[in-house]
Amino acid sequence: MCRFTLYMGDEIAVADLVTRPENSLIHQSTHARERPEPLNGDGFGLAWYVPDDPVPARFRSLTPAWSNANLADLARVTQSRCILAHIRAATSGTFDVAEANCHPFRCGPFSFMHNGHIPGFGKIRRSLLESLSDDGFAMVRGPTDSEHMFALAMQHLRGHEGRSSCELLAEALEKTVTGVLDLIDRHIPGSHAYLNLVLSDGRNAAACRFSSDPDYIDSLYINQGGRYYCDGAVCAMTAPKDSQRAILISSEPLNTGPRWQAIPRNHVALVDSDLGVKTRELNRAA
Amino acid sequence: MCRFTLYMGDEIAVADLVTRPENSLIHQSTHARERPEPLNGDGFGLAWYVPDDPVPARFRSLTPAWSNANLADLARVTQSRCILAHIRAATSGTFDVAEANCHPFRCGPFSFMHNGHIPGFGKIRRSLLESLSDDGFAMVRGPTDSEHMFALAMQHLRGHEGRSSCELLAEALEKTVTGVLDLIDRHIPGSHAYLNLVLSDGRNAAACRFSSDPDYIDSLYINQGGRYYCDGAVCAMTAPKDSQRAILISSEPLNTGPRWQAIPRNHVALVDSDLGVKTRELNRAA
Amino acid sequence: MCRFTLYMGDEIAVADLVTRPENSLIHQSTHARERPEPLNGDGFGLAWYVPDDPVPARFRSLTPAWSNANLADLARVTQSRCILAHIRAATSGTFDVAEANCHPFRCGPFSFMHNGHIPGFGKIRRSLLESLSDDGFAMVRGPTDSEHMFALAMQHLRGHEGRSSCELLAEALEKTVTGVLDLIDRHIPGSHAYLNLVLSDGRNAAACRFSSDPDYIDSLYINQGGRYYCDGAVCAMTAPKDSQRAILISSEPLNTGPRWQAIPRNHVALVDSDLGVKTRELNRAA
Amino acid sequence: MCRFTLYMGDEIAVADLVTRPENSLIHQSTHARERPEPLNGDGFGLAWYVPDDPVPARFRSLTPAWSNANLADLARVTQSRCILAHIRAATSGTFDVAEANCHPFRCGPFSFMHNGHIPGFGKIRRSLLESLSDDGFAMVRGPTDSEHMFALAMQHLRGHEGRSSCELLAEALEKTVTGVLDLIDRHIPGSHAYLNLVLSDGRNAAACRFSSDPDYIDSLYINQGGRYYCDGAVCAMTAPKDSQRAILISSEPLNTGPRWQAIPRNHVALVDSDLGVKTRELNRAA
Repeated sequence: MCRFTLYMGDEIAVADLVTRPENSLIHQSTHARERPEPLNGDGFGLAWYVPDDPVPARFRSLTPAWSNANLADLARVTQSRCILAHIRAATSGTFDVAEANCHPFRCGPFSFMHNGHIPGFGKIRRSLLESLSDDGFAMVRGPTDSEHMFALAMQHLRGHEGRSSCELLAEALEKTVTGVLDLIDRHIPGSHAYLNLVLSDGRNAAACRFSSDPDYIDSLYINQGGRYYCDGAVCAMTAPKDSQRAILISSEPLNTGPRWQAIPRNHVALVDSDLGVKTRELNRAA
Repeated sequence: MCRFTLYMGDEIAVADLVTRPENSLIHQSTHARERPEPLNGDGFGLAWYVPDDPVPARFRSLTPAWSNANLADLARVTQSRCILAHIRAATSGTFDVAEANCHPFRCGPFSFMHNGHIPGFGKIRRSLLESLSDDGFAMVRGPTDSEHMFALAMQHLRGHEGRSSCELLAEALEKTVTGVLDLIDRHIPGSHAYLNLVLSDGRNAAACRFSSDPDYIDSLYINQGGRYYCDGAVCAMTAPKDSQRAILISSEPLNTGPRWQAIPRNHVALVDSDLGVKTRELNRAA
Repeated sequence: MCRFTLYMGDEIAVADLVTRPENSLIHQSTHARERPEPLNGDGFGLAWYVPDDPVPARFRSLTPAWSNANLADLARVTQSRCILAHIRAATSGTFDVAEANCHPFRCGPFSFMHNGHIPGFGKIRRSLLESLSDDGFAMVRGPTDSEHMFALAMQHLRGHEGRSSCELLAEALEKTVTGVLDLIDRHIPGSHAYLNLVLSDGRNAAACRFSSDPDYIDSLYINQGGRYYCDGAVCAMTAPKDSQRAILISSEPLNTGPRWQAIPRNHVALVDSDLGVKTRELNRAA
Repeated sequence: MCRFTLYMGDEIAVADLVTRPENSLIHQSTHARERPEPLNGDGFGLAWYVPDDPVPARFRSLTPAWSNANLADLARVTQSRCILAHIRAATSGTFDVAEANCHPFRCGPFSFMHNGHIPGFGKIRRSLLESLSDDGFAMVRGPTDSEHMFALAMQHLRGHEGRSSCELLAEALEKTVTGVLDLIDRHIPGSHAYLNLVLSDGRNAAACRFSSDPDYIDSLYINQGGRYYCDGAVCAMTAPKDSQRAILISSEPLNTGPRWQAIPRNHVALVDSDLGVKTRELNRAA
């Protein structure tokens, strides 16, 4: 279900993620390599941060990424230091392909996206909603597991809009995962959750690769370097140099460069505001 | 907010409601006459019943009715004995123009549509959801007051799928109105509700014209006759004759014929399976 | 490029082509078996004929077939004796995914759909348009090769709206193929054309399987029998019996039944108004 | 038919045209003041120029501007020195509401938009297309008069991509108007043309207000000043000061400020790369 990419570093064009790389998100929308089903055609979304505005911009569409002329144009001209891009594969048979169900979700300065799903989510949805504050409850506009999880994450972020950190973001993810697992235990014991999640405030980020199913976990990679750029269709990440840093966290490597590393199972990667990265085991006792 | 029409009688084309009459729903989508704002451009929907299938068919779109080529074609060829048609004016500023938020809503054999709104609905939404059974809760996919009210109505209809009646449908509407008013009293006292509602199972129907605001109520008309037909753009309802009956319940008269009568304020009209009509005051003690 | 199915026979539900069979068009929209690229996600369209109206009804959408709730509902309730269904794979990189570019095309009683493409079509488009009558010219609203070819076919059909035949339809296809090949010879010699075409007037039909490329031709099958029906997801064509006949012409077999036969390369199948079928070599000297 | 605004000056947010002013384009999409019909709900489009890229970015949608969440977000974060914004009212009954038919149109560095229409355009379309070079012919993807006129204008601009001027742009508009009038004279004598046009290359612009109908001309205003800005919903144009200049050319004034002046009937306004403005009678002998 779905593919996504997070970028942080010097300003790049959205196209450097979405259209230019050999295994761009557009390419993955029809030919994802590391999912059993290569198609991610149920809409897409972008969130990006601009100077002097804490609230990220967003562009979402329920039509497939590969044929969206607006996406091609926006990707060409939009530059940002922090970009989230997501292509959706809706859970089969739900007919909920709608703009409101496309990722990234956002709330204040926070943005969120998800690759995976919670089979049987309908059976925990009600309890999840009951656990939310009124503000969290009011956030949820659609029926997807992803949007509900973002509301869970926001339970831990509300009040921190101006002063969050990658630790805080990671904790929010951990609490979200833990909360989902608790709900599963109570309502659909034996079921699993597939939770590759990204959460950012534009300067910090956390991303987890999590599955409670010993037999399957969705792919997730990190690429840390100095500068990420595309020259035509050839995209590359340079080695880190002095204070210049760039980070890619992506469901699949965007190119064949050597710097992509799989995030280990049930780990969380933390990106601080200096673009330093720390990866540690996800704490489920959160 | 919104305009709608219900038809019951011998088979007619959907076009006889939507495109052909002088004041057709397409015409009302840009030039509604009895709303302060004449525009109803936030999507539309049709539900219609077919022989040998209790579940109504439905066609909805988030684009405006006036420019939808599919609607024009479907209206031309689709014949039915029971048709619900709705054009939407979304509550301003909510950006929730989505197919999932278009009326009619449906559940099993039941279909539902709403003209009006509940100002401050966000403040009662949570309590409303809490009052629902698990089945009712699972029905709600979007954030609109209308869909939530249909879930309320279904609380009273579940289990009656095979043997409903216009009395049962009217009671469901009354309980829905009463439920909404109770929630308003508890959470947003002094606020009002504008609830013109239609509920049908394809053979019976109930429709209420209700407002708790002494200063405003949306228009609603009923037209009882023998046969409704369009000859070109001239549409007419004949006088009742023997057992041939047809009923129109519509936010606005579709033509200038003499048979349109305003449903009185806070009344409910009941249409039984012989297309007999009874109108009575809405019972708020439901 | 694209997949399609034509049905003629006793009334069936559109769902019997589009959603129910094991290899339904919905299935082919993501997992076509006989194209190098299994994805047909650039919109879809239906045309179907109704009693007492020569003009076919049509429903098209630029969104993918697999997630379209309206399609699922219409397919369930729409019955017809003649149905054309098409799922589109737009020529890569053209960004012309639009409702107006979805098949089937229609003009008066005639409907048309295409699987294939003409590489370098832009270089013959102008000459093709110049060869059209004013009526033919006025038909063309978009840039696709398919719509232009339908205008070519209509050159040979105009005036025959009330009295066409499968021979006439087949000739129109042959003249279209010949016209395209002539234009290629003049403007882009050495280029090829991939032209699997269906043309119908609701009672008769012709379908050709044509490629000028010795190395590639798109698949096309015909299935002649007595009655086609689906029982749940099991769809079958019975043996012909007395006067009961049904015909399927489809890019891919919809099920695993024994009656599917490949139409030979560069042949045309003619279906007359008694649902008799004749297959003969396509006449390029048309 | 339609409303539009061109801005040139220091960088502003698109929102300063589209969402913030009292009579913003969003407001005009439902409540245009100077058209007989206040509704412009058949899609919209933006074009804007970015540094270091001659080709303008574009965002178009077939859904109405008032409910488009992407538009609201893009308008908020997109800054540019040259912005074209357009809301469409399609010619009634054509069902050609499509992204490809939304303005602005563009070709290389040039962008174009139109308010008005050519009644009976279908009767001159063929001759117009015949008069185009192959490049011009290939540009035209849809059936609208507007797109065809842009192809006419491009006849005079091709080859000048790197060194255009407001005089050249004005001549292109004049030749377009003259060309259309010649075609009307030949094919539909006595018919009229309503041609409010804007053409820009991002640094220069020309805009004409033209009607051949003595009884009707669409409104068009120009506002020249020093700096245009919005403070909340209060938008203003300051007086010109030194070299700081800003220009608005708009179907309707966006606010109630004193600087809006109607462009005289059948005049063209030229904006040079220093944002100097000259208005002169449109030369129909072009």
